[in-house]
Amino acid sequence: MPQPASLQASAGGFVLTSQFRAVTTHFDNSRLDGAIHRTVQQLRQKTGLPLSLEATASAEAPLTIEVQGAGEAIQSIDENESYTLSVTPAGAHIEAATVVGAMHGLETLVQLVQPSGSDYILPLVSIHDSPRFPWRGLMIDCGRHFEPMDVLKRTLDGMAAVKLNVFHWHLTEDQGFRIESKLYPRLTAVGSDGLYYTQQDARELVSYARARGIRVVPEFEMPGHSTAWQVAYPKLASGNPPTSIRRDFGVADYELDPTREETYQFIARFLGEMATIFPDPYMHIGGDETPAPDWKTNPRIVAFMHAHHLKDNAALQAYFNTRVLKILTGLHKHMVGWDEILNPALPKDVVIQSWRGEASLAQGAEQGYQGILSAPYYLDAMKPAGTHYLADPLPSSSSLQPQQRKLVLGGEICMWAEQLYAGTIDSRVWPRSAAIAERFWSPENITDVDDMYRRLNVISIQLEGLGLHHLTQEDASLRELAGTQNIDQLRIFASALEPVSFGERYHEQKTSQLTVLNSFVDAVRPDPPSRYKIARLTETFLKSPQSDSADQAALTHWFETVANSVPTVEKQMQHSPRLAEVQQRAQQLPDLAKTAMDAIHFISSGTHASVGWKASKLAQIEAAKKPSAIVRFTFIDSLNLLVNAVQE
Amino acid sequence: MPQPASLQASAGGFVLTSQFRAVTTHFDNSRLDGAIHRTVQQLRQKTGLPLSLEATASAEAPLTIEVQGAGEAIQSIDENESYTLSVTPAGAHIEAATVVGAMHGLETLVQLVQPSGSDYILPLVSIHDSPRFPWRGLMIDCGRHFEPMDVLKRTLDGMAAVKLNVFHWHLTEDQGFRIESKLYPRLTAVGSDGLYYTQQDARELVSYARARGIRVVPEFEMPGHSTAWQVAYPKLASGNPPTSIRRDFGVADYELDPTREETYQFIARFLGEMATIFPDPYMHIGGDETPAPDWKTNPRIVAFMHAHHLKDNAALQAYFNTRVLKILTGLHKHMVGWDEILNPALPKDVVIQSWRGEASLAQGAEQGYQGILSAPYYLDAMKPAGTHYLADPLPSSSSLQPQQRKLVLGGEICMWAEQLYAGTIDSRVWPRSAAIAERFWSPENITDVDDMYRRLNVISIQLEGLGLHHLTQEDASLRELAGTQNIDQLRIFASALEPVSFGERYHEQKTSQLTVLNSFVDAVRPDPPSRYKIARLTETFLKSPQSDSADQAALTHWFETVANSVPTVEKQMQHSPRLAEVQQRAQQLPDLAKTAMDAIHFISSGTHASVGWKASKLAQIEAAKKPSAIVRFTFIDSLNLLVNAVQE
Repeated sequence: MPQPASLQASAGGFVLTSQFRAVTTHFDNSRLDGAIHRTVQQLRQKTGLPLSLEATASAEAPLTIEVQGAGEAIQSIDENESYTLSVTPAGAHIEAATVVGAMHGLETLVQLVQPSGSDYILPLVSIHDSPRFPWRGLMIDCGRHFEPMDVLKRTLDGMAAVKLNVFHWHLTEDQGFRIESKLYPRLTAVGSDGLYYTQQDARELVSYARARGIRVVPEFEMPGHSTAWQVAYPKLASGNPPTSIRRDFGVADYELDPTREETYQFIARFLGEMATIFPDPYMHIGGDETPAPDWKTNPRIVAFMHAHHLKDNAALQAYFNTRVLKILTGLHKHMVGWDEILNPALPKDVVIQSWRGEASLAQGAEQGYQGILSAPYYLDAMKPAGTHYLADPLPSSSSLQPQQRKLVLGGEICMWAEQLYAGTIDSRVWPRSAAIAERFWSPENITDVDDMYRRLNVISIQLEGLGLHHLTQEDASLRELAGTQNIDQLRIFASALEPVSFGERYHEQKTSQLTVLNSFVDAVRPDPPSRYKIARLTETFLKSPQSDSADQAALTHWFETVANSVPTVEKQMQHSPRLAEVQQRAQQLPDLAKTAMDAIHFISSGTHASVGWKASKLAQIEAAKKPSAIVRFTFIDSLNLLVNAVQE
Repeated sequence: MPQPASLQASAGGFVLTSQFRAVTTHFDNSRLDGAIHRTVQQLRQKTGLPLSLEATASAEAPLTIEVQGAGEAIQSIDENESYTLSVTPAGAHIEAATVVGAMHGLETLVQLVQPSGSDYILPLVSIHDSPRFPWRGLMIDCGRHFEPMDVLKRTLDGMAAVKLNVFHWHLTEDQGFRIESKLYPRLTAVGSDGLYYTQQDARELVSYARARGIRVVPEFEMPGHSTAWQVAYPKLASGNPPTSIRRDFGVADYELDPTREETYQFIARFLGEMATIFPDPYMHIGGDETPAPDWKTNPRIVAFMHAHHLKDNAALQAYFNTRVLKILTGLHKHMVGWDEILNPALPKDVVIQSWRGEASLAQGAEQGYQGILSAPYYLDAMKPAGTHYLADPLPSSSSLQPQQRKLVLGGEICMWAEQLYAGTIDSRVWPRSAAIAERFWSPENITDVDDMYRRLNVISIQLEGLGLHHLTQEDASLRELAGTQNIDQLRIFASALEPVSFGERYHEQKTSQLTVLNSFVDAVRPDPPSRYKIARLTETFLKSPQSDSADQAALTHWFETVANSVPTVEKQMQHSPRLAEVQQRAQQLPDLAKTAMDAIHFISSGTHASVGWKASKLAQIEAAKKPSAIVRFTFIDSLNLLVNAVQE
């Protein structure tokens, strides 16, 4: 995962032994050596074989890697990422034009390893692979909640494993300015809560990413989402900024002043400083959500707009963007921004990142703008991996013309951070991002959701082996919530629940930066295995609802098991006020499970329910859909199908 | 945990609200602020209350902290670590002479928090606390396997939580020299596998430790365990050192040459450099295990010994130590070394760390040497926490005189690293170290093992909240071993097994630095909950073996559950060669469980087994005690008791 563009398999395999060793021919460099080293570490871990970590010069090693050259000094979107990988009875062979291509081949190699009898083998395959889109990104919002360096590093490890190649680093927000400026030290000293990346950190991360074939695109939000800039340097403000960073979330009313020359001097010096840290040819200036009430009321700004024939805020923002674009061009950087920067006044070499949707992206492409799709890949929507997976950045049904289609560079997963922190981020990002990564890399026609989930479960374990905590965070949080290590029943209870969407949580909780993110909702994972399992079982059961079928038994057993967990959990709630928050869910679960089991019985036995049963149960389901403890039942849609299938 | 020296509790408690806030009176400094910040973070996590992270100047805050002064600029063994903590209906109050004392008080405060109805409270208490021993250490061997900085940092977090105050950093070994020397760069360039701490890392760790009231005592092994020095600088060798670091373990035959002046010049310059990094007044020179065959055969060394009237290797080592002591004295450092440095030729201000046992420690004290006990605290012996817990560094039964008793400074837990790495260290160190920490801090008469285990289970969760992975490593490893996330049954199976001792594993596996430490034995934890639980149930059941008692039911249920896990696990073994390693254990488990259930039945029903039953079952137990997959059954001693209690 992601599935290669082309794979031919034959019967049999190459058996891995402790002699398995990499040899580089034609070309070698330290970045390639590093990738080989990491690959061998993973192979050691997977097979238990004491493989040698160093590449060898001998030509007898069964893994040969033939790379034409290092690739670009600064990885661009045109970097050749293709590779071929063949496994024969004599060994494995990787060929690539660049080190980045070879890295992708090595990641594929790791995933090929499988048990066979008492050995581990590489199946015999011939793979020709290259990405469908050149821009395959993951954005992490480090503004609203700071993420320590080790979290970002393990995120990059996970990205490399699934061939994502752009780390979009959201570095500034109303709630915190997270990157050190030596020219403007107040940006972090006053504009943050003390948590920020030093320039050394940032350089280290850029180099860590490059070692893994990943570009780093930094984002500095302007003119909106910039309260932190203005808290630190009030002269930049269009109006009266607050005196300290915001702790609450939501769109702020504080924009930079686009009418003062000093603003551009500041931005030019600041971006110039950032350009010495971030070598990527792209810089992201944000640009979204700029209500800018001050632009309508500040007499100086109103006068400026009048003088420059700028009829509204959008026109003023376009003026601002034109000025910033000039600065970026001077720094040899391309501009990237969110939908709102889209304006005919801007030249065609800016890139639009669309959070509004495919239509907005297509609109940009029609006007000649390059674009990246993000709208369907918002992880905080808490949608299933399967939903994200089926959203295509450029479906063949799109009405765009061939030349316009080329303008769609790819997609970016977005992980906004209002409702997460270092202790919970992994389970929000992984494994769902792996499914989206496949969408960005693999051919459009790879859309088998069943097969995706099967493989997602496997890669999830690989990601855990790389140091990600997405599978362990839940247990750790449940132990802390319950104050005991006896969480067998609580774990079962929790497996039937998942976090509600960002919007619903925000509405219910009024989450702020000061909210402690250690409630039950923070423990449970989005799209946990139970959701898909029950949906799938329900589907097959309803197709041929036989009594005593395996599907019926599995469904009934699952509902019985989750219902049986409740008494223990309710006892634990008596000793934990924080766990008691889910009391209502605990009360609802056994009743819902009973409804499910009754429905299954009615359907499989062909008996009819008494009149009114269905209406009363549908009402029960509706009640259970109402907000409670900002978590929802993973099986509620399946239960709805079951109840609706009952005959009265 | 550790239990305070004196605690008086009264009924009721102080209810924590989001207004709870710390105020420092009399004195404040940044180290204290840092400790308060960490405390509030923990309180937020524990209670979910959005407590303010900053201390306030207002006197109305319900947590007042009164500290007399910063304490010593470089924390010594004489640092005043005492504190008082009182909780009244009006709030909490901590008093201490030093910041270190206040830190201990804050750690105690965190542990006091408990649920009460729908609130979290601090119970009303009055605590006067100070440590029994001034030296409460944990040694981590970073030579044989390197531990990344984040592992060491979370270890220090755990140490602070249980009031350990010495991090003994074992930095050099035959298998790797782990600390950067700018004077002698080959020490790491040639004398390691590339994994080492930079001087900046080391300074960072010293400062991280100081912020938590922990001293850092570095160890540089000499003249033995020094292959890495000699690989890098062959001139230091007594004989012919190898050309690369050792990968196998066990005592090496390569000692530094104690007869050449250049050796001492080298040591003097190197230790001088280290003294600029490590401010602690103590430096550890190792000194253990020096077979030194070259000292008997190298003609130059033999001639030197003759000329200096040094009759044997021990005398030559004493000469060496005297010379090194002079260097350390010049650096204003006290010398610490293992038992072997004990020699009447050495002045009395060296400290002996005893890995040989209480007798050796007492012998040192009788001769006037200060000592630290380590022998009973070797974590790689894979002994139960309860065993370590009951080993006292200075039992009241000791024959030492009052003046000699003062020479026993305390104890040190030792975590040698032949058989662990970053992925497994946490479950080897924690939570057992917390039990030993209590032994070092609390009064001698605190020896209730039941109560210790009860509290250990609680603090284990707190340690997990600090970022330690001791409770999650097992699941992560089991998932990787089985290649599936369905580990419910495998988890149950694994819960009945634990790693064998260091010695047995070494014998069976011939572990080397290249061994991949990801077998089943690496997944399971020493002294897992099942061991103590079954031992305790067996004990109470045998005391009054009634049919239908709760003990009988719990015991039978447990054995039934673990036996029932086997079919699923055996199926998983078919798809995992690495998991299949435990096949024999899986075969043995159901039979042993059946024996247990039969025995319980015989005993509780008062029926007799047929003649020969007992002998055959004891033989079965003996067979199960034989090595297999370097893991052992946690219940085997209990089973033995049960079978022996059956009447024929």
